[in-house]
Parts: sequence; structure tokens; C-alpha cells
Amino acid sequence: METTPSRVVKLAVIPGDGIGPEVIAEAEKVLDAVTAGSGVTFERTRFALGAGRFLETGDTLTDADLAAIASHDAILLGAVGGTPGDPRLKDANIERGLLLRLRFALDHYVNLRPSKLYPGAPGPLAEPGDIDFVVVREGTEGPYVGNGGSIRVGTPHEIANETSVNTAFGVERVVRYAFELAERRRKKLTLVHKTNVLVNSGSLWKRLVDAVGAEHPDVAVDYLHVDAATIFLVTNPGRFDVIVTDNLFGDILTDLAGAVTGGIGLAASGNINPDGAFPSMFEPVHGSAPDIAGQHKADPTAAILSVSLLLDHLGLAEQAARVTRAAEDDIAARDDSPRTTMQIGDAIVERLRA
Amino acid sequence: METTPSRVVKLAVIPGDGIGPEVIAEAEKVLDAVTAGSGVTFERTRFALGAGRFLETGDTLTDADLAAIASHDAILLGAVGGTPGDPRLKDANIERGLLLRLRFALDHYVNLRPSKLYPGAPGPLAEPGDIDFVVVREGTEGPYVGNGGSIRVGTPHEIANETSVNTAFGVERVVRYAFELAERRRKKLTLVHKTNVLVNSGSLWKRLVDAVGAEHPDVAVDYLHVDAATIFLVTNPGRFDVIVTDNLFGDILTDLAGAVTGGIGLAASGNINPDGAFPSMFEPVHGSAPDIAGQHKADPTAAILSVSLLLDHLGLAEQAARVTRAAEDDIAARDDSPRTTMQIGDAIVERLRA
Ligand SMILES: CC(C)[C@H](C(=O)O)[C@@H](O)C(=O)O
Ligand SMILES: CC(C)[C@H](C(=O)O)[C@@H](O)C(=O)O
Repeated sequence: METTPSRVVKLAVIPGDGIGPEVIAEAEKVLDAVTAGSGVTFERTRFALGAGRFLETGDTLTDADLAAIASHDAILLGAVGGTPGDPRLKDANIERGLLLRLRFALDHYVNLRPSKLYPGAPGPLAEPGDIDFVVVREGTEGPYVGNGGSIRVGTPHEIANETSVNTAFGVERVVRYAFELAERRRKKLTLVHKTNVLVNSGSLWKRLVDAVGAEHPDVAVDYLHVDAATIFLVTNPGRFDVIVTDNLFGDILTDLAGAVTGGIGLAASGNINPDGAFPSMFEPVHGSAPDIAGQHKADPTAAILSVSLLLDHLGLAEQAARVTRAAEDDIAARDDSPRTTMQIGDAIVERLRA
Repeated sequence: METTPSRVVKLAVIPGDGIGPEVIAEAEKVLDAVTAGSGVTFERTRFALGAGRFLETGDTLTDADLAAIASHDAILLGAVGGTPGDPRLKDANIERGLLLRLRFALDHYVNLRPSKLYPGAPGPLAEPGDIDFVVVREGTEGPYVGNGGSIRVGTPHEIANETSVNTAFGVERVVRYAFELAERRRKKLTLVHKTNVLVNSGSLWKRLVDAVGAEHPDVAVDYLHVDAATIFLVTNPGRFDVIVTDNLFGDILTDLAGAVTGGIGLAASGNINPDGAFPSMFEPVHGSAPDIAGQHKADPTAAILSVSLLLDHLGLAEQAARVTRAAEDDIAARDDSPRTTMQIGDAIVERLRA
């Protein structure tokens, strides 16, 4: 007879390519360990998607795949993408046809990317200070919409355009999310854009941050051009609390943020649909790293911290905090001796059980 | 009676706003010192342009200003731009109407931004290694073309678009310049773009780098997505020699590069029209920094190193090298004691004369 209340979460798991399956295996071990006996069961469906599947079958993400994934409560993704330069993968069909298609079709308008310098994590900065901020990257608009085209391709008269599309609807909802997050944190929000060049979209972002900011008088708001923001990320990252920015600037800033906080082997992310209309998707910021795939060298910590974001999103705040703490403790105890992907996963599971 | 052959260079000087006039004063002292007795005279015309002029007269850059500037052999610019947030300067009219208008009208298709970690320069990285690379940033296309627009402004249905325009003509010429530069340096060229998202412009850049690269078999070519490039700029900047990239990515990467090499107080740049159809323009990468204007705190080194780029562009390689050496020696001798803008300029002039 069961005594704990029982809840079933339908989880779609997309291990993906390269190191994806390796880090996801560890993330799942952590998920199992932290939810054991909690009354929450993760009912998993595995989706074999990615460059591997595409090369075998020619399919990237079929409508049937998408519908099946969408019927889940949440998604855990490893990494997708084949070997750079593989001519069979041209036109970025995996990135656009799979990863970005999921983010757009499932309306993941918040791409949440926390950056924290964990004690013990080796970073490149001489004097990093306290780093603890979250980038709220818009996920469904901007230069990522695929609204471009070329004419006279291959001739000296070729013209290639890319149009960034930005809407009040799309910007306002992500800005609201960022302000609400800032309210729960240190109450500081920085808008990053390039309003002095991208005057139309920049003005839209600026006005909406001002308008929503007026409803949050305790949140201190500032603005940085994206170029200046990269300077502060290396000279004074401690100045940031919540950064809200567009899809492309967020992509750039979060890789840089990952680097200054000890490498993207530690950087977790959530592609979130806050309305709950679609399942949110959690994934490490890093890619499939085909160069080290199969060597058990990949650090699964980013995937494991993505599980923490997943748990938090599902309202399992206590379990989320336990995962983060176990990962943090593991990071703090690291020395120079190399460990395999599995050894790191096991060590974190060990700490969870202790 | 003159014995040295004499050459007159017509130089347009635009001191600009904020710290612009302060750093330009030092740059001019250096120019005078290094060319004294060389037979080259710089005949200067001063143009009072910038936010100050705009606020007084309402003019940003008139057609007459532009024609007058264009009749010079070269341009030295300090920095332009008013106080951030000044409502009278909205819509980025100084940046777009003055600085970018000059770059576009004078067809400055190469925005040359060297990054070097000078011995003694204090940088934020714990283990910077040898840093010595040049970013060749495209200057007349991409998301900077001002090809955007908004509808339903101020309503919940506002849509703001920005179109990045990229042409084979524009990309090929800057790529050729970058390869020629790489031939004279360590023969390594890195294309930075975001080909997996901006597939149309990315493909154009990629194909042209491949095509021009085939004419330069000794130059090793690699490719990085812009997000990954920011990681390497802090974890392994020594891997770069020549970076070629688009206008916006170049803007972002060069501020970051400035930061990792000791601050944008040292970062020089040239807006170059290699064809010689229009005068090239040399300016520090930093802005007008209104917050420290008038306090004699600004470091004029970036402006002085821009004079070195100017001299080099004019074929005065020996003088250019002397300026760089004097600035480098000054940097190497720096300690923590603060110096005024003028003191730094004087010290560099002193070294030139020694
Ligand atoms: C793989 C790529 C399309 C993706 C992006 O640009 O968003 C990645 O860089 C990321 O940040 O998740
Ligand atoms: C002031 C601004 C328009 C300019 C740019 O974006 O090019 C500046 O950041 C630069 O890098 O010279």
C-alpha cells in the first residue's frame, strides 16, 4: 500500500548526439535518486532524434514526433548536432529543424540561463568576485525567426537578407517574466540590446522595459549595449542580477557567461513556456561536442543542473534545491584528477543519498 | 632651404564629445612629435561635430560637412555621443546620423581593430597568454544598414523588424582584405558568424571565405559561431590571428577583446576604405564617456594608437612603429599611480623624442 501521495510526470527524453546521451544518462540517474520515495514518478518516453537519426532516415523532427513530444509534461534534452562541416548536414538542418523548431513550436518564450560561480569552479578571471545572475533570453523571436532569404546565389550579385522580427506581444511577456524573477532575487534588472543601431527593435524593448518596470518600482533597472555588456561580464560580472535580452544577444552573452563561471560544462538552461500550454524543455547550454563523444570525458554537471531547473519548474522546489546542492558540493570538492562522466554522475548521486 | 622631401596630408579632425577632445589633444601632440622634421606636414581642419553641436544647432552631419570631410586625405575622430538617456538625443541620432553615416558614406568597409596584450597592461584574465590578433569587422553592411521599421508603434500589436543586408560584393572585399592581412601575419584566419541560425548570410560568408581561401593556401582557415568565439576570447585568446566577421559580431567581439587586453582605453581602430576612394577614419574603440569628461582621467592611449594606424595607412610605417613602441613602453612602465590624460600623452611624447 502506498502512503505518499503519488504524481506521475510524463517526461520526454531526447538524448541526442555526441555527448548528449552520455550526460543524459547521468542526469537521469540524478533524477531517479532525488525522486526515489517522493511519490513523484517520471514516466519517460525516449525520442531518438538528432543528426544520427537524420543521417539514417532523413527525418529531423516529423509532425508526429512533435505531437508526441508535446503530449508530455516536460522535456529533457542532451545535445543535438553532428560533426561540424559534415556536408550531409548542411543548412544547419539539425539546429533549425530540430532544436529551434522545438523551441518555437512549443512556444518556449523564456530561455532561462542562470550563471553562478560555484566555489571551487575554475574560471578564467583573475578576480571574478561573486557571480550570480540569470539571463532571461527571449526564445521565439528576433533574428532566430528564420525570416531571411537570398537572391542570385553563387553569383557576384548575391544578396542575403536576415530579418529580425520583434513584437510587443513577444517582448512584453518575456520582460514581465524577467521582472517577476528579479522581484524574487536581488531586484536588479539589466536590459541588454543595441538600441543605438537597431533602433526599431531597440526602442520597442526599451519602452516595454520602462512600462513594465513602472509596475515594479522596487526593481532597479539599467540598460547596456550588448558590446558594453560583454566588457562588464569579464570586468565586473558581479554587477548583474537579472539580464533580459533578445534571442541572439542572449545566445552570445550566455556562452560568455558560461565561460567566465567555469565553463559551459556547468551551464544549465530551461526553455520555458510559462503559460503551461506546452511542455518546457531543459538542456545544458553546451553542444554535442562530437570531438569528445564516446570518451566519457564530458562533464554531466550542466545536464544535472538542468534537471534541477526541470524539478523547480514542476514545483518540486525541495528536490531541485537538493540537486543543486549536491552538484555544488561536488564542484567545491573537485581537484585536478580527471573523472569520467559516469564518475561525476555517481559522485553527485552519492551526495544526494548521503 | 628644405632638404627633406615634403608631403602635405590633409587631415580632418573631429574631436567630438565628452572625453573625445581630451584624448584627441594628446593624439595630436604625438602626431606632431613623430612627424617633426620628417617632411610630412599634417594640414588640419577641425570639425565641431557631435552631440554638443546637435544640441546647439540641430545639425548632426550636413551634406556640406560630409563633402568638406571627404575632401581630406584622412580623418582622426575622438568620440561622439551625449549623455545616455538624454531625451533630446533620442533615436540614436548621433550614432546613426554622424558616426555610422561617416562610415557608410565614406565606404569604410574595413573596420580594423587590433587587439594586443601589451606587457604590463592589467587585464582581467588569470592566464591570458600571448594575445595578438586583429579583428577585421565589415563596416558597411549587415544589421547596421538601417533597414528596419515598425508598425502599430505604442500599441500591443507593435511589430519592429530589422533587416541585415549582406552582399557578395561587400563580403568578398572585406574577406580579401582579411586574407591579405593574414598573409602578412601568422597566416591564420577565423571566420566568426552564426551560420547555424543566420543561414542565408552565414552561407554567403562561408562560401566566400572558402573561395578566397582557395587563393591563399598557406593561410589556415577555421570557423567559429559567435557564441563560441566569446568563450575562446576569454579562455584561449592566443588562438586568434585574424578574425573576419560581420558588422554586429565585430562590434561585440572587439569590445570584449578590448576588455581582455586591458581595457578599451587601449583599443585603437581604423575605419578604412582600402580603395582610397574616400578618406579613412581612425578612432579609439571607446565612446565619449560623459561620466568622466572634463576630469582629465581618460586614457589617451587608444587615441594615440589610432594615430599609429593612421600613419601606417598613409604609408608612414616607420613613424607608425615609433608611436606604437612609445605607447607600449609607456604601458610597460605603468604602475598604480594615477596620471592625467595629459601626463600620459606627455610621457609618450617624451619617449618619442628620446
Ligand atoms: C545550436 C544553436 C542553434 C543554439 C542557439 O543559437 O540558440 C545554441 O547555441 C544555444 O545557445 O542553445
Ligand atoms: C557607437 C556605435 C554605433 C558604434 C558601433 O556599434 O559600431 C560603437 O559601438 C563602435 O564599436 O564603434
